[in-house]
Amino acid sequence: MQPWRFLRIKSVDVRTAIHGLVEEERRLTAKALDERSDHFMTLKVEGILECAEVWVAALMDGRESHVFGRRTMPQMDLASVACAIQNLWLAARVEGLGMGWVSLFDSGRLATLLDMPPGAEPIAILCLGPVDEFYPRPMLESEGWATKRPLEDMLYEDLWGRHPSREMD
Amino acid sequence: MQPWRFLRIKSVDVRTAIHGLVEEERRLTAKALDERSDHFMTLKVEGILECAEVWVAALMDGRESHVFGRRTMPQMDLASVACAIQNLWLAARVEGLGMGWVSLFDSGRLATLLDMPPGAEPIAILCLGPVDEFYPRPMLESEGWATKRPLEDMLYEDLWGRHPSREMD
Repeated sequence: MQPWRFLRIKSVDVRTAIHGLVEEERRLTAKALDERSDHFMTLKVEGILECAEVWVAALMDGRESHVFGRRTMPQMDLASVACAIQNLWLAARVEGLGMGWVSLFDSGRLATLLDMPPGAEPIAILCLGPVDEFYPRPMLESEGWATKRPLEDMLYEDLWGRHPSREMD
Repeated sequence: MQPWRFLRIKSVDVRTAIHGLVEEERRLTAKALDERSDHFMTLKVEGILECAEVWVAALMDGRESHVFGRRTMPQMDLASVACAIQNLWLAARVEGLGMGWVSLFDSGRLATLLDMPPGAEPIAILCLGPVDEFYPRPMLESEGWATKRPLEDMLYEDLWGRHPSREMD
């Protein structure tokens, strides 16, 4: 369906303005979080100024014409662009490049900055480029914010909350 | 963050009930579409009864505690599960397995069927397993419903609607 567009940010002025929006949102979010989490976010925000490429992924305007599944699941266009971003992420990794997905922004203000028409909606700021090293673990884990849950926590059988019984397998 | 769960449907009764919900939604959607599109949807719906494995991907309840980016972008948990599904899709393809993502259903009714708690939300019905062959092109294309757009249509530079100028590259 491709109900999305990517913007490659080449202008330094536009990149700086995007960084400003994200930094502002970081401060607002940090008020609700402890210092450790704020450190994590600060790393993410700095990436916007330092990375080789900044891209913005956005849902397009007029996407009501993409009808499949939209009668009951209009949010599937967001799922679609997320899959496209994940493919970009994996493709970058194969090339030895890093990518950071930043979602600390007010989408309405970012849309205005990038001259988006009504109905279009920025979904992700992507920081892409060479990195010194790859994290051995997800950053949320190494920053002590969250722990990866084991597979059996994530998987139910038939009904919500029912864990697979080994006897029946 | 992993704000999601997967349900592996082993019960034939549950699978049949899921098929019933999807078939019902197909009929409702078909009213708004022409016959060709309905053929496409029928293929998808049949897959639910025929495939080796049916899985349901869902957002979990209580996900308000996943705070990063949620102040302005609460829909990022859907983006997260979409990335997980895309990874599953690619991993299946590497193993020579096919996957179909069905979003023709009423999420409230599917949630009830699968005994989900308030706040949890099914996102995708996944049909997974061996296939006779892989489509040479996306199914939407071979069914004549949509055409893949060229890369230059998908990519803007700095501002919405501005196409990269080759001179400046």
